[in-house]
Amino acid sequence: MLKDLIKPNESKILLLVADGLGGMPNESGRTEMEAAPRAHLDELASKSSLGLTDPIATGVTPGSVPAHLALFGYDPHEFRVGRGAVEARGLDIKLIREDLCIRANFCTVDRATGVVTDRRAGRIPTAKNEELVARIRPAVAEIDGIEVLVHSGMEYRFVVVLRGKGLSTRISESDPEKEGFRPRPITALAWRAEKTSEVINGFLKRAADLIKDEEKANYILLRGYSKPPDLEPMNDRYWVKAACVAAYPAYKGLARILGMAVLDNDGTWEGELNAVEQNLDRYDFFFMHLKELDKLGEDGKFAEKVEQLGRLDALVPRITRMGFDVIVITGDHSTPAVLKAHSWHPNPFLLWSPWVRREGKTEFTERGCARGQLGRMPALEVMPLILANARKLAKFGA
Amino acid sequence: MLKDLIKPNESKILLLVADGLGGMPNESGRTEMEAAPRAHLDELASKSSLGLTDPIATGVTPGSVPAHLALFGYDPHEFRVGRGAVEARGLDIKLIREDLCIRANFCTVDRATGVVTDRRAGRIPTAKNEELVARIRPAVAEIDGIEVLVHSGMEYRFVVVLRGKGLSTRISESDPEKEGFRPRPITALAWRAEKTSEVINGFLKRAADLIKDEEKANYILLRGYSKPPDLEPMNDRYWVKAACVAAYPAYKGLARILGMAVLDNDGTWEGELNAVEQNLDRYDFFFMHLKELDKLGEDGKFAEKVEQLGRLDALVPRITRMGFDVIVITGDHSTPAVLKAHSWHPNPFLLWSPWVRREGKTEFTERGCARGQLGRMPALEVMPLILANARKLAKFGA
Repeated sequence: MLKDLIKPNESKILLLVADGLGGMPNESGRTEMEAAPRAHLDELASKSSLGLTDPIATGVTPGSVPAHLALFGYDPHEFRVGRGAVEARGLDIKLIREDLCIRANFCTVDRATGVVTDRRAGRIPTAKNEELVARIRPAVAEIDGIEVLVHSGMEYRFVVVLRGKGLSTRISESDPEKEGFRPRPITALAWRAEKTSEVINGFLKRAADLIKDEEKANYILLRGYSKPPDLEPMNDRYWVKAACVAAYPAYKGLARILGMAVLDNDGTWEGELNAVEQNLDRYDFFFMHLKELDKLGEDGKFAEKVEQLGRLDALVPRITRMGFDVIVITGDHSTPAVLKAHSWHPNPFLLWSPWVRREGKTEFTERGCARGQLGRMPALEVMPLILANARKLAKFGA
Repeated sequence: MLKDLIKPNESKILLLVADGLGGMPNESGRTEMEAAPRAHLDELASKSSLGLTDPIATGVTPGSVPAHLALFGYDPHEFRVGRGAVEARGLDIKLIREDLCIRANFCTVDRATGVVTDRRAGRIPTAKNEELVARIRPAVAEIDGIEVLVHSGMEYRFVVVLRGKGLSTRISESDPEKEGFRPRPITALAWRAEKTSEVINGFLKRAADLIKDEEKANYILLRGYSKPPDLEPMNDRYWVKAACVAAYPAYKGLARILGMAVLDNDGTWEGELNAVEQNLDRYDFFFMHLKELDKLGEDGKFAEKVEQLGRLDALVPRITRMGFDVIVITGDHSTPAVLKAHSWHPNPFLLWSPWVRREGKTEFTERGCARGQLGRMPALEVMPLILANARKLAKFGA
């Protein structure tokens, strides 16, 4: 329905996703947002409409990929995008339809017991990762007629892509998800996946043999088996020219999967904003992703999350001076520091345009957003609201 | 589901639709409703439940017909009611199933360039319209075996009904929608529509030739091709006796399509209310439509819209004295004067009955409704709420 209504225009849109933005009160009784300096955010909020969004469904805690899909207007119940493909596209690996993408971690296993003692291999430096991948690559280049591509990511992360006919995603994952357990055996979950299981076990055997004497990165965990998803590009879906500014590969990967341009930046928040500013003439929809709040929430660092929220507040004057027609500031999901994890709590949502019912005096906090004029809504409604405020939607019916 | 629960009773219901009621703040920071005198509305609001309704979907700006369908409990995504049929029934033209209804405008085209210079032909008087239609009618009575009925509407508007076998709605519209452009050619959009296209082009050629020397109304624009929709009558759907009181033909037309009686009135707000009062014993569901706020919003007349809202406020004491069991005051869609157009903003919604959770001290404004106890809901939920408050719904399950 939406697609029939879309019309092109010159509007400039900023969708700023502060990952893990929303929180919960700690023993002080205040949430991270309530405790943070918010002079600029509150001023912007008073000229905006506020609300709360549910990424997937009430009570459901989302992963980053489905939470972002919902924000971009792709129903995460309909479109399942596997993490392997997201990571592969995050490293800008060119994929073809039959490829099987696998998210891989170097890890540490105890030689005596075989249990995983560090799922992240002591966060080895990326240079070490590259050295190990270079060692593995020639030994696994082809297994049972399947081409095997191996690409280093950041720190302990890498990506394996299997290329050939008849590969299946119906394979069990080896990551035990907790330390103190052995890696799970990798087996076919369906008859048609037997061959794939053999190739993956072959890869794992050869690769593990080459790193078994490493101090930290002496084993490999595999998960997120997925084929490249085939999603309608955002530019076609919404008649925009979309660009992504992010520091982390996963968000760049998802952006590439949705057909966005991915803009170079130095990975700092200020650097990301520089990239937006330098490309204002070339694109009209900017997805800007800030990762740090989520990490601090996951690590339970309440005070540090509050401090970073102050840094977000300090970015606001520069953002509002850039001349956007629509500005959204929100999270993909909440990450309360007291919970040390993603959560099901709805996301604070701020929408500024010349065409909103302004809130007047308010706060950009969970509570302020709960009292906002937009009420509580599915995150899937964010893109329609953005497009309406960008004046990109024609009238429905006569 | 709803239908299984409906039971008849004597309750009297008023659904007052103030077209284009909701607005947006202008430079004063206040919306039209916030700036308006509201002594009686606010008093009624304090005894009512308030909320906000979305006519179609978040961010989607509705036309009047789908917005009203939603208010009457007919899903506008399921029931597409074409404007041609609405206008034809607005003029009380009796239709049969195969008829093709067309919404027609007299317009002014520049003789030298052929571009439309006034889509409304300078709003010629209705008497002039009737003179032109009388001139055209005999010349087009039958084209290629198809009967052609032509009926005058108000000012520049008229309706053409084609009657015969095999007519199709898959025809392009000639209205360029903006002045300064030539009328678009009328062509078949599907193979089966070729014959219809020839008949319509034949009509246009003959009719245009007869008016080409007129000063203002020298051409014709055609759009809204539609067959008579077949909707379950409201009286059957809700076990009510429904009546419409409206000044404008389109709303009367939609009411007739839904099987409502259409009550005579002088077209003023007070006259409409007289019609309601005089027919209180004969019907139990009254749809009363007030057009002016929408027109003033579309014309960008903020102060005048505020003034008319004061007139609405002044009607309230008379309305509340009439003895209704349920009173709803709402809009079909918002028409903010600063936007000069229909908008996607949700509608202020007031529901009074003895059975509501009363708001206590509040304001009947967009903001007051955003804080109301009903929250934000699809307009499709208005009829179930009305029926519940009219005590017309039995319990679901044991």
